[in-house]
Amino acid sequence: MTKPIKLYELAGADEKIRFSPFCWRTRLALAHKGLTPETLPWRLTEKDAIAFSGQGRVPVLVHGEDCIADSWEIALYLERTYPDRPSLFGGAEAQGMARFFNQWADESLHAAIARILLPDIHALLHERDREYFRTTREAAFGTSFASLTAAREDLLTKFRQITKPLRSTLAKQNFLAGAAPNYADHIVFGEFQWARVASPVELLADDDPIAPWRDRMLDAYDGLARTIPAAASRQTV
Amino acid sequence: MTKPIKLYELAGADEKIRFSPFCWRTRLALAHKGLTPETLPWRLTEKDAIAFSGQGRVPVLVHGEDCIADSWEIALYLERTYPDRPSLFGGAEAQGMARFFNQWADESLHAAIARILLPDIHALLHERDREYFRTTREAAFGTSFASLTAAREDLLTKFRQITKPLRSTLAKQNFLAGAAPNYADHIVFGEFQWARVASPVELLADDDPIAPWRDRMLDAYDGLARTIPAAASRQTV
Repeated sequence: MTKPIKLYELAGADEKIRFSPFCWRTRLALAHKGLTPETLPWRLTEKDAIAFSGQGRVPVLVHGEDCIADSWEIALYLERTYPDRPSLFGGAEAQGMARFFNQWADESLHAAIARILLPDIHALLHERDREYFRTTREAAFGTSFASLTAAREDLLTKFRQITKPLRSTLAKQNFLAGAAPNYADHIVFGEFQWARVASPVELLADDDPIAPWRDRMLDAYDGLARTIPAAASRQTV
Repeated sequence: MTKPIKLYELAGADEKIRFSPFCWRTRLALAHKGLTPETLPWRLTEKDAIAFSGQGRVPVLVHGEDCIADSWEIALYLERTYPDRPSLFGGAEAQGMARFFNQWADESLHAAIARILLPDIHALLHERDREYFRTTREAAFGTSFASLTAAREDLLTKFRQITKPLRSTLAKQNFLAGAAPNYADHIVFGEFQWARVASPVELLADDDPIAPWRDRMLDAYDGLARTIPAAASRQTV
């Protein structure tokens, strides 16, 4: 009765390195629902491999006859398809509110972290993806990777400014959804998992209240997010 | 059985002009619960009048023997005290998530709007509050009101950047909580009501998806927020 679930995920040159923040939102949402997908590594330039989804980005989830792209649409699909499993939101109001977390993560947090990570992500990618990645991202951000690396301290300061509301919230409660994680936590943690897997740069100060939340999210769902080693631990500094 | 509720609210020189974003959070939360407080006008320098609350800021809510300061604490108090009336959140997860909206409004949105409004708020205040207001705010923001007025176009650009996630969320759904407003809407709308009552400056472009949401919030609760006239309509330009 349970149809298998396939998930196309962005992979690095080493196909075990899965770092896309959007794919992590989906992985955690699946785990929250008690579902284990078959994950398929995908590289940025393999547009043909997911052309069946009608677009060119991951995550793409395939479940029987259904094919869903976009992490937010996948979350809604999972909530709709598995209403008897633990809710990703916790009610209609929380689902509405989760969309703001999704947009905040995409438009404020992601952009701030991307500027810090892009040069390190470039180095992680499969060789055939690198030129595509550099060209598209340098155009999107209007700057060169070399300039981003040179500006890293300023970019960290800006990141810490943007994450103030996250810091003050997590100083007061264990998860964004209160006592236990929901999809709001999955969304925001995806960005921190991206940073953790892609770059040895530590975004958070030792005493940052975001750090113990990040640890709680790494521990959640039987330590799912820890199954990918951190960039800092993969490198010999 | 129902004990009367008193609410101390910030007022301008004209005591009918109530513009504090924090007091508006509470007014809307009370309306959501179907409660009508007796509102007491309070001026910034009247610290003695609310000294009984153990601190010096409004809103302060007095309900029988209970006295609660801070809009977030008041929201939790109302939710706890009136569990059978419409929920301000819609469950434990949504309550957790609402705290992030609270912190985002306080730390990102409020700061961006304040820089635009401060000079106009100064003009609204009771004469005896003005020097106190100028001195404390110029110190807090590290700049003079004259400089803020001169920089208004840049500040509006920055405001529009910070509100991107709000804009893209409200392009997709009627309220932050989905189909109907909850305390997340009260929190964020309080900032827009503050701007509307305090300043003739229009923060939003005509086609901004935040504008129809602001109208819906002005209409909500029998048009409660419209009972205070907008600054733009009070002035003869």
